[in-house]
Amino acid sequence: MNDEDKHSSSLEPQSTSLDEFEFIASLRQHTPCNADDLVLGIGDDAAIIRNKPHHETVVTTDLLVEDVDFRRSTTPVLLLGHKSLAVSLSDIAAMGARPRWTIISVGLPEEVWRSDFLHEFYDGLLELAQYYGVQLVGGDTSRTDSKIVINSTVIGECHAGRAIRRSGAKPGDQVFVTGSLGASGGGLRLIERGVHLAGQNFTESETQLLDHLLLRHLRPEPRVGWGMVLGQEQLATAMIDLSDGLSSDLNHLCSESSVGALISSTQLPVDTHVVELCGRRALDPLQLALHGGEDFELLFTVRPENVVKLPRRVDGVEIVRIGEIVDAANGVKISEGAKVWDLRPGGWKHF
Amino acid sequence: MNDEDKHSSSLEPQSTSLDEFEFIASLRQHTPCNADDLVLGIGDDAAIIRNKPHHETVVTTDLLVEDVDFRRSTTPVLLLGHKSLAVSLSDIAAMGARPRWTIISVGLPEEVWRSDFLHEFYDGLLELAQYYGVQLVGGDTSRTDSKIVINSTVIGECHAGRAIRRSGAKPGDQVFVTGSLGASGGGLRLIERGVHLAGQNFTESETQLLDHLLLRHLRPEPRVGWGMVLGQEQLATAMIDLSDGLSSDLNHLCSESSVGALISSTQLPVDTHVVELCGRRALDPLQLALHGGEDFELLFTVRPENVVKLPRRVDGVEIVRIGEIVDAANGVKISEGAKVWDLRPGGWKHF
Repeated sequence: MNDEDKHSSSLEPQSTSLDEFEFIASLRQHTPCNADDLVLGIGDDAAIIRNKPHHETVVTTDLLVEDVDFRRSTTPVLLLGHKSLAVSLSDIAAMGARPRWTIISVGLPEEVWRSDFLHEFYDGLLELAQYYGVQLVGGDTSRTDSKIVINSTVIGECHAGRAIRRSGAKPGDQVFVTGSLGASGGGLRLIERGVHLAGQNFTESETQLLDHLLLRHLRPEPRVGWGMVLGQEQLATAMIDLSDGLSSDLNHLCSESSVGALISSTQLPVDTHVVELCGRRALDPLQLALHGGEDFELLFTVRPENVVKLPRRVDGVEIVRIGEIVDAANGVKISEGAKVWDLRPGGWKHF
Repeated sequence: MNDEDKHSSSLEPQSTSLDEFEFIASLRQHTPCNADDLVLGIGDDAAIIRNKPHHETVVTTDLLVEDVDFRRSTTPVLLLGHKSLAVSLSDIAAMGARPRWTIISVGLPEEVWRSDFLHEFYDGLLELAQYYGVQLVGGDTSRTDSKIVINSTVIGECHAGRAIRRSGAKPGDQVFVTGSLGASGGGLRLIERGVHLAGQNFTESETQLLDHLLLRHLRPEPRVGWGMVLGQEQLATAMIDLSDGLSSDLNHLCSESSVGALISSTQLPVDTHVVELCGRRALDPLQLALHGGEDFELLFTVRPENVVKLPRRVDGVEIVRIGEIVDAANGVKISEGAKVWDLRPGGWKHF
């Protein structure tokens, strides 16, 4: 993801006379069909992928809608390209699989088509794709009358039988989470209050704090490396990515596994910048860590005897044990010191 | 696709209290994971498909946007569900592959979520899916502020090396098209003039004529059977589906194959209802057949020695020879009696 790589993937400046077929042709030049298992990429009615024996294909999709999932005024287009792919890479990681191919649909109004939008969008998207060896193999473009919509589909692969579902957790399994919690939710709340990246009216240390939180929201890093290690080594019994928020996603995992869980609030890896932000504003960082959403960390469960086999970090990202799986009858709970509460889903719902 | 099948796939009437997770759960009950190569369907971070050795995976996507690709006021929701899948099935057919799985994203405003929309939409979509043995294996739902958007992804399969590209046509190959041309474009023009299905102010024979044309636009039938036969038997050298219009799509095929073509206007299978409509209104049916778009017929090329091996009809649909592939230097042309004209792309472009 250095500048040279980025430059080599950069699309030609888009002429206002480019029609959609010419745009597809320009995209095709920048996404060569060079993997030996990609038979045919962009430019036909469909892409063709050679099936690898003893493997499984893992496929996921995400729809992002302007003014619901992002705002044009507060989201740099490069980062929107990054995030559109990142959210689906995160789902593939949560299956313990390796992401390989992506198909992107973009709907946009005519004046956005005539701007540099698609150029920057695909620069951001392809930079992340190339970092993880993911190839853009197809897509669709449509006009909309005012709002931008993006649909990303990512296809991954894993050895047969090694994908990790939400449903495999058993009582006694230890509950882990990658990275840190709450920063994306903190960033979103800052955006909602009008804070921008590299804002002017702050000291240098304030700007660093705010930009960290904003970027965790605008430029999430999917835990692709952790997903592949946990799947390949069969170290996790169940896994989900934290898109809705820890409280919701832990409940999803427990529901699918027909188990309960007890997690400890003091063990949660609350992002240090969130603690600092909340300290300054007398807010509760635990609420952001539990319900903030879009951290895109991985939440997974591990049999007690396998805990020692876990790597300490992957791609520089550490993991923390936050609790234990229990019988379903005990419910999904969180302890705060001596007190134990029900942990109800409090994350994001569209409806 | 009989009533009993349809009834068995019908979703439960949607309660206004259903949230998106409950809706996914209800969809999951109606799309059981029963194919032995579908390892995991709806309900996890991604779907899992077992790779079949010596096969290739073929994948395509289409984005449909309200008021650009369809209008809510003139499109019955059941038919919108049908068409959302049909357009992508048509792409898989154009590869000579068999469609197997679909992933659907829907963005919709809150008041539409609270209506019967999704219920009817998935009824229409699943009816077509079941007819072709296609399983719904995943998707995403998002809110929009006013317009409906739908993204369909379809994954198909074929024996390794048997997919048919746009790029394989050679001079001397004969050009064929399935079914008939122009009816979808005719239907669209009627819709734009305010004609509805089962309209009131017409005689019975007029209503039959109009409904035929409207349904060819609102409820296109992808040529799945023809695609599979041509791919499996390796009878076509190149193939594309007619989504943009014959004039555009023949130019796409010729451009990808680096060839020209000469087609004959008198051989084009212009839909008889289009001829009748145009006769009554002094319009030129040839314009609709050439440039109308969205007929979703298959356009394909066949080596002269293989023409005798072509079945006469598949699934009741016939084919017609409309011309011949020539050297690129001769361009893409159409003959009208003794005259020969350049056939320039005249179909639909979003931009």
